[in-house]
Amino acid sequence: MAGSPSRAAGRRLQLPLLCLFLQGATAVLFAVFVRYNHKTDAALWHRSNHSNADNEFYFRYPSFQDVHAMVFVGFGFLMVFLQRYGFSSVGFTFLLAAFALQWSTLVQGFLHSFHGGHIHVGVESMINADFCAGAVLISFGAVLGKTGPAQLLLMALLEVVLFGINEFVLLHLLGVRDAGGSMTIHTFGAYFGLVLSRVLYRPQLEKSKHRQGSVYHSDLFTMIGTIFLWIFWPSFNAALTALGAGQHRTALNTYYSLAASTLGTFALSALVGEDGRLDMVHIQNAALTGGVVVGTSSKMMLTPFGALAAGFLAGTVSTLGYKFFTPILESKFKVQDTCGVHNLHGMPGVLGALLGVLVAGLATHEAYGDGLESVFPLIAEGQRSATSQAMHQLFGLFVTLMFASVGGGLGGLLLKLPFLDSPPDSQCYEDQVHWQVPGEHEDKAQRPLRVEEADTYA
Amino acid sequence: MAGSPSRAAGRRLQLPLLCLFLQGATAVLFAVFVRYNHKTDAALWHRSNHSNADNEFYFRYPSFQDVHAMVFVGFGFLMVFLQRYGFSSVGFTFLLAAFALQWSTLVQGFLHSFHGGHIHVGVESMINADFCAGAVLISFGAVLGKTGPAQLLLMALLEVVLFGINEFVLLHLLGVRDAGGSMTIHTFGAYFGLVLSRVLYRPQLEKSKHRQGSVYHSDLFTMIGTIFLWIFWPSFNAALTALGAGQHRTALNTYYSLAASTLGTFALSALVGEDGRLDMVHIQNAALTGGVVVGTSSKMMLTPFGALAAGFLAGTVSTLGYKFFTPILESKFKVQDTCGVHNLHGMPGVLGALLGVLVAGLATHEAYGDGLESVFPLIAEGQRSATSQAMHQLFGLFVTLMFASVGGGLGGLLLKLPFLDSPPDSQCYEDQVHWQVPGEHEDKAQRPLRVEEADTYA
Amino acid sequence: MAGSPSRAAGRRLQLPLLCLFLQGATAVLFAVFVRYNHKTDAALWHRSNHSNADNEFYFRYPSFQDVHAMVFVGFGFLMVFLQRYGFSSVGFTFLLAAFALQWSTLVQGFLHSFHGGHIHVGVESMINADFCAGAVLISFGAVLGKTGPAQLLLMALLEVVLFGINEFVLLHLLGVRDAGGSMTIHTFGAYFGLVLSRVLYRPQLEKSKHRQGSVYHSDLFTMIGTIFLWIFWPSFNAALTALGAGQHRTALNTYYSLAASTLGTFALSALVGEDGRLDMVHIQNAALTGGVVVGTSSKMMLTPFGALAAGFLAGTVSTLGYKFFTPILESKFKVQDTCGVHNLHGMPGVLGALLGVLVAGLATHEAYGDGLESVFPLIAEGQRSATSQAMHQLFGLFVTLMFASVGGGLGGLLLKLPFLDSPPDSQCYEDQVHWQVPGEHEDKAQRPLRVEEADTYA
Repeated sequence: MAGSPSRAAGRRLQLPLLCLFLQGATAVLFAVFVRYNHKTDAALWHRSNHSNADNEFYFRYPSFQDVHAMVFVGFGFLMVFLQRYGFSSVGFTFLLAAFALQWSTLVQGFLHSFHGGHIHVGVESMINADFCAGAVLISFGAVLGKTGPAQLLLMALLEVVLFGINEFVLLHLLGVRDAGGSMTIHTFGAYFGLVLSRVLYRPQLEKSKHRQGSVYHSDLFTMIGTIFLWIFWPSFNAALTALGAGQHRTALNTYYSLAASTLGTFALSALVGEDGRLDMVHIQNAALTGGVVVGTSSKMMLTPFGALAAGFLAGTVSTLGYKFFTPILESKFKVQDTCGVHNLHGMPGVLGALLGVLVAGLATHEAYGDGLESVFPLIAEGQRSATSQAMHQLFGLFVTLMFASVGGGLGGLLLKLPFLDSPPDSQCYEDQVHWQVPGEHEDKAQRPLRVEEADTYA
Repeated sequence: MAGSPSRAAGRRLQLPLLCLFLQGATAVLFAVFVRYNHKTDAALWHRSNHSNADNEFYFRYPSFQDVHAMVFVGFGFLMVFLQRYGFSSVGFTFLLAAFALQWSTLVQGFLHSFHGGHIHVGVESMINADFCAGAVLISFGAVLGKTGPAQLLLMALLEVVLFGINEFVLLHLLGVRDAGGSMTIHTFGAYFGLVLSRVLYRPQLEKSKHRQGSVYHSDLFTMIGTIFLWIFWPSFNAALTALGAGQHRTALNTYYSLAASTLGTFALSALVGEDGRLDMVHIQNAALTGGVVVGTSSKMMLTPFGALAAGFLAGTVSTLGYKFFTPILESKFKVQDTCGVHNLHGMPGVLGALLGVLVAGLATHEAYGDGLESVFPLIAEGQRSATSQAMHQLFGLFVTLMFASVGGGLGGLLLKLPFLDSPPDSQCYEDQVHWQVPGEHEDKAQRPLRVEEADTYA
Repeated sequence: MAGSPSRAAGRRLQLPLLCLFLQGATAVLFAVFVRYNHKTDAALWHRSNHSNADNEFYFRYPSFQDVHAMVFVGFGFLMVFLQRYGFSSVGFTFLLAAFALQWSTLVQGFLHSFHGGHIHVGVESMINADFCAGAVLISFGAVLGKTGPAQLLLMALLEVVLFGINEFVLLHLLGVRDAGGSMTIHTFGAYFGLVLSRVLYRPQLEKSKHRQGSVYHSDLFTMIGTIFLWIFWPSFNAALTALGAGQHRTALNTYYSLAASTLGTFALSALVGEDGRLDMVHIQNAALTGGVVVGTSSKMMLTPFGALAAGFLAGTVSTLGYKFFTPILESKFKVQDTCGVHNLHGMPGVLGALLGVLVAGLATHEAYGDGLESVFPLIAEGQRSATSQAMHQLFGLFVTLMFASVGGGLGGLLLKLPFLDSPPDSQCYEDQVHWQVPGEHEDKAQRPLRVEEADTYA
């Protein structure tokens, strides 16, 4: 059948029909279920409500834009390093995020703010949806270059649901604290993508090996992503934190942790680099692990030193992961991890979760004072000891790994459905499969400006 | 005369003298008329004024930076797609915006805040000036590559005045609501530029056709502009909206609309694409129309579903416009629209205005409650019915199209003045006409690092 | 000895060991001395403290992100113009800033917030540390391409200390006002770097001349830096200014000054350009001097006209500096200034300091009213006359130039230590010395997608 006209037409229509179906279904669900919440609806909001308590909410607004910038500019450009896959990297980032934002508004709405037959949305819904889109884009990094856009939309369809359930179980059923999402975003997104990539393992991928590297200017584009992730990570971790000490502490810890992971990354990259030379892949990725590793604990009393130590550890572990573990992951575990999400999100996410276990276990009424209520409400209310909170945090990590692994496995099976359009082994990491691509250089017909011409214009 | 030394000197001096004259004249007018307003002047502001009402003002501050980012990064980089016109695209964006900001501060100041013989400026003046600069840059997109910098400055000189008057007529005389500027910014900027481009029609433009496309990495630079426009559009539409439900609703509606226009664009681009392949031009532009189409109505009770539907419609219409209408626009209507502003701003702007007519016509006291005063003050005060407001909105669109068309026509005649420097037909879309341009590649003399050399350094 | 295996190993280990040592030492000092301040510590912050006075603090949060964006995106990408040094430009920006942030937190902490045996850190510490990192990156611009990363870290180690002391002397001992840092950041950073570059003078640098220019797309990357600096400069100058009129005025003055410097730059660039063509180097740099020149005075009652005049002057002087003075600086004064920091930060910084002298000398109780206390507290309290404040401002400039020159000289001697790794004259401006660099173009083995292949995928 392959190559027959009808099949080709079917394949050509896959993406448009799926987009139209998903957008149509989402729109119908929005029409039936989604309503503005009381802080967004004209009729429910009153100027007289404008109190300090509401102030808290207004401050969210700039944070939302910071998170938004981080997800789109950051994740989008971090993936353009491939020499012939830049269109797909930023383009599919856009596509996936645009769908994930809508779909997770619905999923999270049903889980968290469904009452009176309606989901109630506001600025917080946007931030939560952006977080979920972040997890989907992390998974995208693992399968980058080896999947078509229709496959990716189906991946997002499944992953958004499991992300929402996992987050609900952790935050609401288990009382786990994870403000910046070391577990819910990074660990979940990374292992979901890695297991999925394992199921989609391509033994013949070396046919596309010559396209798997970067070129000089694609690495510079990638640094745009890196820098935006680096600068906005303090806002990302603090985006849903209540105003005041907690938000300041979260930003400060994240900032210190990133600074230390950067120095750790440079040290290790030069140490293990051929002839002492630095590797751009390490700087682009491992330097960011400081943001991941304090995702769970940045709101806690981690101390500035604790933030530095955590960031440094993450940066070094991640760099070593790129150098030594990624090749093993492919050769022994048959996991082809295009962007190295295991090193940027997987290991640092797990480390971050464990750091959260440790810091939670050390929490005392003395160290947190009145702030205990906002950081560990269940301890403050006497429902849990610090040790019990630590155990719950650990169990949360376990749950996340389960959801991610089972979900990634299911996702892999879904994406293997034979009628789905997937690039052949010899055409992975290649924009031309999905895009009309212009040449790399300007038209050869172009001539330099000649003096006669310059003189004759009107 | 052409080619004679004196003429060449005259042409060389055109840009510097115009810059110096415009800057000098602006500075004199600033010296005579512009003063800090009471929220900016040291002597007029008192700490005791620091009330909730003022809070509203402080919150503007981050929004100002968001709008600023959107106008400069967004519009600047959205136009670098041309393979040999990147310097001019970002450079002239800078030049035009820097002049438009000053000039529109004066024009808008005379129209809106002139009392006691002075214009009073503050943070709101900056946001309003940025909006006006946005409209000028939209018009720039229509004539991109076919006009010199001196011509562009003259275009801005005229357009800023007409923008100010049109906005004044709509918002102050007609009581039209247009928070995000579907009419005042997008429709006005697009049709001003399109009519101007019509007057400047070049029948021989195919002489520069080989330079009219993009190259691989120029398309990636363009995606920087796209992403920044996408992420900051919620702030752009909400920048001048009062705090509270209205601002949240504006951001939320814009966000949903953009998500839907993105999915609609991918669907249609793949559907009409050759061999089912996506076209980067569609993604770079049509995916943004969700922000344009809710410009008038995003503050209204559009409902989340309404935002999705509007965005989807705009994305699909815009994509179809790029595919089918832009060629007709050139061949039949003799409008050469370099960036396709008709598809990104023109049609979506008109659609957005009509959507505003519809949503305004459906406004009820029930749906808006206490919020009616801030969204439709004239309806709330009983001076107008919803239907009457809708009619005023429609008339506002008509006025905008008139101002834009007549203004664009006048602008075209102005730019055709024979002594103005304009690139010849064979040198359109070419940086070398205006800039000292380095080569595309590093010096051929460069040699790879040899081992002996590496070993001999101190 | 050169070229011997042991020496090569020693050189290879320099960067990793220095990174590890500096990170280790910083971490120990953090462990001993650094604590959260009362607005960041869970136990010290109380919800009941949430007053208007605190509000002031919360508003800092978005400004922090703006400053952060400006320092990293702005300075990082402004330096990628060199055709073969993009990795080092953004990479070492990252490295230097990550170290400077930590180290200046300690240095500034000891000088400003050391009590009870501890340094107390919060959001303001982050902004102050970012400012210091900015100065270090300015100095980096002077020596860009001619120094290795270990040398740069040592430079930062010294510069951060002197930056902190100079700032302390100016702001706390002399009562100098310098909100946006014309003196403390720009003048200090520039002359520190220039004197250092003088000490490191390389008579044989023409061996690397062929690598010293830009290529077409590296100039576009640089424009990313330029635009981010331009848009966030109002926030940068206003970041540590108290809320209210002062902050608005600072932003407004900076905005006007930048607009005028942009027009002045275009005018002069076209005027002095070969054949009337614009030079991208001028636009990338001189257009930004409007932000530098009002660094000292933007919070003062400069008036909108004053801001325009100052910006215009800075833009023209800076453009002329690039054209005429930079070559003399190298040939006569033996200062090799890679990025032209003398034109972007040096001269405009000194001009900004002198403008501050003038505006301070003209201060009257009438013009400032109640705002005098926040702008010139010592004049408001009657401890100083306006003339005396002006003299102190002038003396502050003198002190800054002293600290910068002596510091830069010491720094140069430090960096000349013979065992430090430095690129040879023939390998300056070359990434390959420090990085594993991929090719400029995609693998030649890559073939276009053939139809048979496209048809055979699963």
